[in-house]
Amino acid sequence: MAAFPTTTPEPPYTAVVFTSVRTDEDDEGYAAAAARMDELAAQQDGYLGIESARSGREGLTVSYWRDEGSARAWKQVVEHLAAQGEGRRRWYAAYRVRVATVHREYGWPAGRGPHPDL
Amino acid sequence: MAAFPTTTPEPPYTAVVFTSVRTDEDDEGYAAAAARMDELAAQQDGYLGIESARSGREGLTVSYWRDEGSARAWKQVVEHLAAQGEGRRRWYAAYRVRVATVHREYGWPAGRGPHPDL
Repeated sequence: MAAFPTTTPEPPYTAVVFTSVRTDEDDEGYAAAAARMDELAAQQDGYLGIESARSGREGLTVSYWRDEGSARAWKQVVEHLAAQGEGRRRWYAAYRVRVATVHREYGWPAGRGPHPDL
Repeated sequence: MAAFPTTTPEPPYTAVVFTSVRTDEDDEGYAAAAARMDELAAQQDGYLGIESARSGREGLTVSYWRDEGSARAWKQVVEHLAAQGEGRRRWYAAYRVRVATVHREYGWPAGRGPHPDL
């Protein structure tokens, strides 16, 4: 199991927020494919970490990248493109992808920089 | 129940990624407080939407804001500050907050702009 929350370097870096709704909660190969994609993502240049959670059919995955170029490169990895196609054919009723630049990060109890309330 | 994925305007806008680990899975007032915070956030100037998912103790919430100023203002709302304190005292073992600017968004089946694969 990956660290949660994941540890990321000093901003700026890129975050890709993937918001998905499954077609149903049956697995149909989804869990194995998702685990494989996590493993494959972690091998890419510029990968910083990933965090996922799912409530029933509704899922959020945030992957962190050194820069937008490495996030874009991951999107184009052949095995990942195949999984994206399978996702649209079978697993997902809908999804959205938001590509963002992280400017500021803090945490509790320990954190990157002082907690704004402390 | 809020829309999931939530609908957001043309980028740029601000995303706040809140990654949390609960102390345990017992409720202890958490669900009611979380629902109240969702309701209160939605009343703030600049609020665009919110998405949450939780797998056991691990949770992700992404809130979307018109700009970083409105995200910062929400952080300082008195009732929200009280909930943040309660969160550190009771509900959360750890959390991280990442403030980001969304530059690009797309979705499937419908989406903001063409899907990069289509």
